[in-house]
Amino acid sequence: MSKVIAALSISLDGFVAGPDPTLEDPLGTGGEQVHEWAFAAFAWREEHGLEGGQANADSEHIERLRARVGAGIMGRKMFSSGSGPWEDDPKNRGWWGEDPPFHHHVFVLTQHPRESLVMDGGTTFSFITDGIESALEQARAAAGDKDVQIHGGGSAVSQYLAAGLLDEITITFAPVLLGSGTPLLQDVPPGRLERTRVTESPSGAIHVEYTVRK
Amino acid sequence: MSKVIAALSISLDGFVAGPDPTLEDPLGTGGEQVHEWAFAAFAWREEHGLEGGQANADSEHIERLRARVGAGIMGRKMFSSGSGPWEDDPKNRGWWGEDPPFHHHVFVLTQHPRESLVMDGGTTFSFITDGIESALEQARAAAGDKDVQIHGGGSAVSQYLAAGLLDEITITFAPVLLGSGTPLLQDVPPGRLERTRVTESPSGAIHVEYTVRK
Repeated sequence: MSKVIAALSISLDGFVAGPDPTLEDPLGTGGEQVHEWAFAAFAWREEHGLEGGQANADSEHIERLRARVGAGIMGRKMFSSGSGPWEDDPKNRGWWGEDPPFHHHVFVLTQHPRESLVMDGGTTFSFITDGIESALEQARAAAGDKDVQIHGGGSAVSQYLAAGLLDEITITFAPVLLGSGTPLLQDVPPGRLERTRVTESPSGAIHVEYTVRK
Repeated sequence: MSKVIAALSISLDGFVAGPDPTLEDPLGTGGEQVHEWAFAAFAWREEHGLEGGQANADSEHIERLRARVGAGIMGRKMFSSGSGPWEDDPKNRGWWGEDPPFHHHVFVLTQHPRESLVMDGGTTFSFITDGIESALEQARAAAGDKDVQIHGGGSAVSQYLAAGLLDEITITFAPVLLGSGTPLLQDVPPGRLERTRVTESPSGAIHVEYTVRK
């Protein structure tokens, strides 16, 4: 059966985003530094329709992950900012643009039913209102032989982890201290993981892959 | 000039200790897992006067660090539990036993002056009441050509980092999730670090060394 995986980037003091996130600046003060390694990588830029970028260990890491993933799941805040009327407004097409970087079927966890959105480039957003297990079942079906990635945010990853449904987690440690911000995971049960792979990049980031012990 | 370094172990979700620490269990619930890699290492056991242990990458990491360090600094809670009368009670000799594992001169940050304590095995505790810069000056003098280690706790490391006095920090990522607990650092200013070395151990721990950019 396909694996359920997540990949998150954090600062060395354990934050996925900096303090004071806003709609315009969802990564918070300094939070973009946690993702700089990705922004500079060829593979990330390519999937976001951007030119250039470095073909380094970060880029290879992204490509290796992407090749495994056949479908994704995300929380509603990762689909679109805020909450409220947008959730069932058919004009709201999320904040990923018309050609989102996923290029596969993405299941959005929400409480507001709405029709699926077929975007350019192979991404379809479907809106799931009956819980994380239903979303996973549908994502597994869409992924075929490939894996399902919980794209985020931290809350969605925490829910799958807490439910014992996450098989692997990759944590990228960015070489920054943010001082405060949003913690990596919240309300997860204590647990042990098995380290399976370490990738060091010249960017200063380090990617550490773990299997969740069940 | 000698460097000022710190080495801290954290869980993957960013905690140096688990929830609900007590005097009897200062590492909190599950917190001992963050340090398991050390407890099992030959070099750690040797400096604590214990038999056995594994001569693995963790042990080599400890030995390499120990060889660099000529003096140390710690917060008062790391010297002895709680606060109050003990601080100037000459009968209180800390909770490290008569042969503490430091084997060098350790300067304790406190507000209560008292005479230095000469312990077995090369450790002397001196009590510094006039601030972190004074403690560092005295530790540098004691260290000679070697480096000064801020042993902890997190609060002492945070103070030296915030004051721009820390040159290097080594973070050991233990393969556990604690769910909640004491964060790695508190009230540190945002900053960038340069990754200088990565050591993977079969224990599942990974040691990542950084230079603090100033």
